[in-house]
Amino acid sequence: MRYEELTIEGRNAVLEAFRSGKTIDKLFLLDGCHDGPIQSIAREARKQDTIINYVTRERLDQMSRTGKHQGVIAYGAAYTYAEVEDMLAAAREKGEPPFLFLLDGIEDPHNLGAIIRTANLVGAHGVIIPKRRAAGLTSTVAKASAGAIHYTPVAKVNNLSAVMETLKKEGMWFVCADMDGESMYRVNLTGALGLVIGNEGSGVSRLVKEHCDLIASIPMQGDIDSLNASVAAGVLAYEAVRQRLNAR
Amino acid sequence: MRYEELTIEGRNAVLEAFRSGKTIDKLFLLDGCHDGPIQSIAREARKQDTIINYVTRERLDQMSRTGKHQGVIAYGAAYTYAEVEDMLAAAREKGEPPFLFLLDGIEDPHNLGAIIRTANLVGAHGVIIPKRRAAGLTSTVAKASAGAIHYTPVAKVNNLSAVMETLKKEGMWFVCADMDGESMYRVNLTGALGLVIGNEGSGVSRLVKEHCDLIASIPMQGDIDSLNASVAAGVLAYEAVRQRLNAR
Repeated sequence: MRYEELTIEGRNAVLEAFRSGKTIDKLFLLDGCHDGPIQSIAREARKQDTIINYVTRERLDQMSRTGKHQGVIAYGAAYTYAEVEDMLAAAREKGEPPFLFLLDGIEDPHNLGAIIRTANLVGAHGVIIPKRRAAGLTSTVAKASAGAIHYTPVAKVNNLSAVMETLKKEGMWFVCADMDGESMYRVNLTGALGLVIGNEGSGVSRLVKEHCDLIASIPMQGDIDSLNASVAAGVLAYEAVRQRLNAR
Repeated sequence: MRYEELTIEGRNAVLEAFRSGKTIDKLFLLDGCHDGPIQSIAREARKQDTIINYVTRERLDQMSRTGKHQGVIAYGAAYTYAEVEDMLAAAREKGEPPFLFLLDGIEDPHNLGAIIRTANLVGAHGVIIPKRRAAGLTSTVAKASAGAIHYTPVAKVNNLSAVMETLKKEGMWFVCADMDGESMYRVNLTGALGLVIGNEGSGVSRLVKEHCDLIASIPMQGDIDSLNASVAAGVLAYEAVRQRLNAR
């Protein structure tokens, strides 16, 4: 298990961190700012005996990594990467077939955060990312995830293809999104499923694609080539949701 | 659509830009400076609902490309805005019912770009954004749109609700995405439709919501509140695509 330093910025992200039970060591609030959200955050901080520092905007700007602190920056316990086995255990515990997202090289932290957010809302049991050439769990990702990072486990693995082969032995199957696939409406997205989303520029890598059982395409009728990666992940994941709701 | 990277500096240049009818998205004025020319510029800006930011000399110096800003820097539309009527004409020409996106205060340029990209790929005829409290067509938006900005027209309007009422008279109807709506699978998303997407933090405003014919909710089963705005737009738009494909 690995750790990275945790800085949480932005009102929703900080409030969500408190409410989900994360340990926040230090909280920096914009001095003189007493609106509703700031007061809610201060209240949560007092409940948890978090030290509150009231500082100037200049100080917050200097501390900020995202440039979008909204008057709130929190320092806390590091984000923890989960193990893939924990995700399978969580699925078993809920009596659900495992539903995972595998991100084959998402580089933009905003996209990674948005995808973790989507994974949480579609009831996925976790998100698997590769160690190399991909965004990790940073404060920008945490903010973009709108707090989902505190609920949906993220595992970082050396080799996506190898993990896919292991998971296939446990009964999972894998669908990647790519233009040359069958229409997603005709691909079965129920059951023990891993959704594979490719890199923003180059899509799913050849090797990972070879390990997928099926390729699903999102219908496109416009002038350009592809959706934003987090939008594509959302559209495909919600087609899976639709099929699962019908299947019940 | 014509590309036009537009930063205007200096008093005469900015005043001239306003008077010639250029779309200025943002105006930066030296704080505390109230002489005649600056007041004339501020007056023109207010007439056109341009957002005025009063900033320090240091900030202007940093922003300036010419080093001769004279206390005034204006950012204009990097792209040419279309008229709503052009979108309806394009739909008529293709023999399709108009399919529009209305963005009620999307502030993040990455989200705006991703939504224009989605609008292009689902075959929408245009995107309508409000003048106030919303991202305009900047170079960041253009980049995030992956070129879709060159194909899918974007109109900037004073009052979204008023435009909706006009379009209703032309036979269009409007669906907004909100948590308290009916499941999107049960809402009819075919025909002459405007999809209304709310602000990242606060959702669809009360007034705009009141002008919607229906409210559609995206099913959510996770721990957090909402999807990323561009993901939500994509998921709802693709439910419309699915219904349209079935309808054929």
